[in-house]
Amino acid sequence: MNPSAGFSLDAWSQPQLQAVEAALSAWVTADTVPALGWGAPAGLVDAMRYAVLDGGKRLRPLLALAAYEAASSSTASRQPSSAALRAACAVELIHAYSLVHDDMPCMDNDVLRRGKPTVHVQFGEAGALLAGDALQALAFELLTPDDGSVPLAVQGRLCAVLARAAGSTGMAGGQAIDLASVGHALDEQALRHMHQLKTGALLQASVMMGAACGQVSDAAQRALSDYGRALGLAFQVVDDVLDVTADSATLGKTAGKDADHDKPTYVSLMGLEGSRRYARDLLEQAHAALARSGLENTQALAALADRVLDRSH
Amino acid sequence: MNPSAGFSLDAWSQPQLQAVEAALSAWVTADTVPALGWGAPAGLVDAMRYAVLDGGKRLRPLLALAAYEAASSSTASRQPSSAALRAACAVELIHAYSLVHDDMPCMDNDVLRRGKPTVHVQFGEAGALLAGDALQALAFELLTPDDGSVPLAVQGRLCAVLARAAGSTGMAGGQAIDLASVGHALDEQALRHMHQLKTGALLQASVMMGAACGQVSDAAQRALSDYGRALGLAFQVVDDVLDVTADSATLGKTAGKDADHDKPTYVSLMGLEGSRRYARDLLEQAHAALARSGLENTQALAALADRVLDRSH
Repeated sequence: MNPSAGFSLDAWSQPQLQAVEAALSAWVTADTVPALGWGAPAGLVDAMRYAVLDGGKRLRPLLALAAYEAASSSTASRQPSSAALRAACAVELIHAYSLVHDDMPCMDNDVLRRGKPTVHVQFGEAGALLAGDALQALAFELLTPDDGSVPLAVQGRLCAVLARAAGSTGMAGGQAIDLASVGHALDEQALRHMHQLKTGALLQASVMMGAACGQVSDAAQRALSDYGRALGLAFQVVDDVLDVTADSATLGKTAGKDADHDKPTYVSLMGLEGSRRYARDLLEQAHAALARSGLENTQALAALADRVLDRSH
Repeated sequence: MNPSAGFSLDAWSQPQLQAVEAALSAWVTADTVPALGWGAPAGLVDAMRYAVLDGGKRLRPLLALAAYEAASSSTASRQPSSAALRAACAVELIHAYSLVHDDMPCMDNDVLRRGKPTVHVQFGEAGALLAGDALQALAFELLTPDDGSVPLAVQGRLCAVLARAAGSTGMAGGQAIDLASVGHALDEQALRHMHQLKTGALLQASVMMGAACGQVSDAAQRALSDYGRALGLAFQVVDDVLDVTADSATLGKTAGKDADHDKPTYVSLMGLEGSRRYARDLLEQAHAALARSGLENTQALAALADRVLDRSH
């Protein structure tokens, strides 16, 4: 049984992706702030746009918009609400900033990302540092417009979820464990803990922020949280598998990097087949959580989970 | 006429500073997140605490608390509200993270801050990068508690003000202009623009966030905004003067740095005496704005403006 059978993820995604790309391009810009009378300096915005636009699979925005669709009552709507679109773009900005900082010489020292020179190669280290910093701030700016498009109470909730997923008990914390773990043997629990923070927290937050823009019961919210958690873990397991099995051209980044750096991975811990089996288990958990949610419009969420397992890069 | 005559800033500040230090120590911590079952990794939190605790004049928190006092109806209160305390600490976290990143080798490459080795010297460059990133996220986390201590609508407003002051149209933008301006001649307007973004925006935000935790009319809010703007500029002018006239031991950081790096400053533009005169003009503007606000409890704000002009470090 496949809950997303007969549903075309590509057809569903196309208008959503168009909306996300248009919104990101409009929002990551040298717009002036009339009340203060000054604008963002162009050099910085160039680096921010370079980091964000024209690249990436936009998994996090799609998760947010799919969760919003599941949590909103209007079933026929293919147009995301302004609040959901802002949530979708905000998580993508946090993701983009983390890649910029992650690629820097003092971290992974990567020169290639999505087939392009990384931001610090293109704009210098200081430019990359500031662009990342500004992108994080912009994420929270997107969530707090003063035009009434996001209810004030929802603004607070969205900022709360995103801040926790990005900070020391989320993404930044996971990166710190990752750095500290090079050359150390981690058991499965420690590895899972690291990945839950490093990539899982933001993927889960994408789901929860989309849902927060709609209306769901507490029980449905818990089920969506379980879905996001399973999907987040599956994403990382597949990532580790791809690091071993795919080549750099397909990945759009340097393959074999983790093994080279003696980083603990699921593949090093449970082998290639064991990792693939674990990813399939997690996919089943994600689908089970959707079934448990009692929500009707979960086809996109189900299909996104399938896509995470089947992706080649 | 001195509007803060007879008012002891030190007596006023003491309990406020105690509350801020206690709150920062409690909030910048390896607290676990029970719902998720994991905590912040200790190494990262060590670097965050090192960057934030036991140092700094806490000017921004004091501005936020003084503005809250001016904007709150209860005149006798010496105990800041939970919301105002969170706002005060959040701006300090943004300030602290900016110093951590600013000191890094790819930026100012400073090894001494407040008389201590800088964060990247103590914890490595990657540790400093991540600690700064996590501190920025934590600022927004502080503003969005789920315990009811900050009304949801106020949460959204506080996040909005802070995000704009921190990002590309605020602090990060000012740093980008600063970087790009080394070796270039800036006229007074361009220099003021740079400083309004780099340091002014966050100082002004401190005032506006404190006020947002109380209740003020639109007119009073505009006056407080003018106060914050004048104070923010005065702060930078005095900073430039001190960079020339004070020694490193008094400053707690490397003196003469800006002149050495051929950075444009107010002193290089309008001379030492001209800069001092300009700072006094700005102080008068700040006091005039407080008078215009129509608010009664502005003694602390007035005294803080005086302190900014008179500070020796």
